[in-house]
Amino acid sequence: MPEATQPAPDAEHRPTLDALQALVGEDLKEVNRLIVERMASPVVLIPQLAGHIVAGGGKRLRPLLTLACARLCGYTEKRHIALAASVEFIHTATLLHDDVVDESELRRGLASANTLWGNKASVLVGDFLFSRSFELMVEAGSLKVLEILAQASSVIAQGEVMQLSISNDTATGEDAYLEVVRSKTARLFAAACRISAVVAGRPEAEELALDSYGTDLGVAFQLVDDVLDYSANQRELGKTVGDDFREGKITLPVIVANARGDGAEKAFWRRTLEDLDQREGDLDEALRLMARHRALDEAMAHARCYAERARQALRPFPESPVKAALLEVADFCVERAY
Amino acid sequence: MPEATQPAPDAEHRPTLDALQALVGEDLKEVNRLIVERMASPVVLIPQLAGHIVAGGGKRLRPLLTLACARLCGYTEKRHIALAASVEFIHTATLLHDDVVDESELRRGLASANTLWGNKASVLVGDFLFSRSFELMVEAGSLKVLEILAQASSVIAQGEVMQLSISNDTATGEDAYLEVVRSKTARLFAAACRISAVVAGRPEAEELALDSYGTDLGVAFQLVDDVLDYSANQRELGKTVGDDFREGKITLPVIVANARGDGAEKAFWRRTLEDLDQREGDLDEALRLMARHRALDEAMAHARCYAERARQALRPFPESPVKAALLEVADFCVERAY
Repeated sequence: MPEATQPAPDAEHRPTLDALQALVGEDLKEVNRLIVERMASPVVLIPQLAGHIVAGGGKRLRPLLTLACARLCGYTEKRHIALAASVEFIHTATLLHDDVVDESELRRGLASANTLWGNKASVLVGDFLFSRSFELMVEAGSLKVLEILAQASSVIAQGEVMQLSISNDTATGEDAYLEVVRSKTARLFAAACRISAVVAGRPEAEELALDSYGTDLGVAFQLVDDVLDYSANQRELGKTVGDDFREGKITLPVIVANARGDGAEKAFWRRTLEDLDQREGDLDEALRLMARHRALDEAMAHARCYAERARQALRPFPESPVKAALLEVADFCVERAY
Repeated sequence: MPEATQPAPDAEHRPTLDALQALVGEDLKEVNRLIVERMASPVVLIPQLAGHIVAGGGKRLRPLLTLACARLCGYTEKRHIALAASVEFIHTATLLHDDVVDESELRRGLASANTLWGNKASVLVGDFLFSRSFELMVEAGSLKVLEILAQASSVIAQGEVMQLSISNDTATGEDAYLEVVRSKTARLFAAACRISAVVAGRPEAEELALDSYGTDLGVAFQLVDDVLDYSANQRELGKTVGDDFREGKITLPVIVANARGDGAEKAFWRRTLEDLDQREGDLDEALRLMARHRALDEAMAHARCYAERARQALRPFPESPVKAALLEVADFCVERAY
């Protein structure tokens, strides 16, 4: 974040997922075992391809949220394990289809599944993982949880189509962008948190508080993801810088820079993102324009605001180590930009 | 069917879906209304693309089966409507992804969705329809039905990946082919029938009888579909002849012709289907080789056998107009080849 307005937090106080992982580490091991078990199939291409993406790193942030929220709700049984695995499978299925749609060559620093096995296999194995997620949530045996996850799945798919509809359209405004983010990313975060309150049998107010926490956390997470795509730190995350630019994706940094730009700059964004007529040096020019208009700062300010809202959403819950860890997750989602 | 061993049935006695459609026509109208309602979305691309495929014809065979089996089971409530719509949405989502995987240009005689809107939109709208199917079945409120449909979805996706794994492999045997057919096609037929017995609260024996009926009917249906791909009647169905050949798909007619062929013929199948090195006149040669070895006859004999097994599976049910209509469906699935 070369142009950050606030100094990066002291390395010693940087928020991490460590506390969260320590608190629910045993549960996460069970989730990981279940994930490996349910990826199995006599059709060898399935565990090969699914294993590549499931094992290929990833923070397991969404299942961690399900596990931690279950703990926060005082849940002591076992249904959250299958649900956390189910949430991760939904996420993984989405990644596989996203990579096909985005024609991505890399995913978490590794060759993407569509590069290695082709688009066809990625589409079908994505379908398989989505079906498996569905089986896992049925096993958890709660119709209310099923309703939440079914609706979340529809909203996610709708958000993906919406994103496709506005792709390469530089007239896209902040509202349309945020609607996509709320649908395609935040809704799964929200569901991942909320279902824990449901299996724990907590009152609706707590369900809704966790839903809000997940929603705002998810928006913050995606905003930062979109900033990172234009950030030099990106390479450390194993992604190439400027993927979104090359695809002509309209994200908040672009929306801000475009809105604040003059006629020549607007023409630049149209040429590069709408017409996808990109030349040597265009990515550098995009970064210069974003710096001039403090577009990444602006996007980060939005992200911080959502992270703060996520923290506030946890107010109904009494202080505890797991609540502290969930508060830290909100900071982590923003500060991982540094 | 130029080389049929049995004469085509008299036109006057040809089996149709008419009786079935007449018996459950009112229910089907409700299903169609629900389908249109649930395709709706503020994201205009969704109803556009989904409407194209859902409205684009199709016999609604799978939802008809759910409705008819509910009637057969004496069910008098309304949950079968949402379930029938759900089954059709699963089927439609599969078609959208199939067309992407097969790179099909036509579907039921119309330009396929991927041709009109691109692969990306087809993948994502397929995901949306699958999510919608999931919402509909949750509304029906039976965990047992959800379990059946979730498992069916996994098996279908597994069958699709299996089909991809053996595509272009002329060493594929009848067993592997039938396993694909049972998974990718027959399992949804089976689930479509079985869930009606579940919502009707019928004993497990009836559930299993309907599952068997659906399985065998589905296998017969797919076998005939694969024969039709090499049949002149195909054009009447709005499909191009030889699609499977051009894609190098290994279906029963190919397996039979290849197994009965000499060295030169085996080399022909390898060149055309494995290497996809296809020249002018190759499709005609394929048809000649199939005629020589009576490969389409053999596949049709298999289909008749499965259709008869489907008929037998209904023996536990007392005679009734709806049972007669379901028996006729089995004949229809085979005789539509003529």
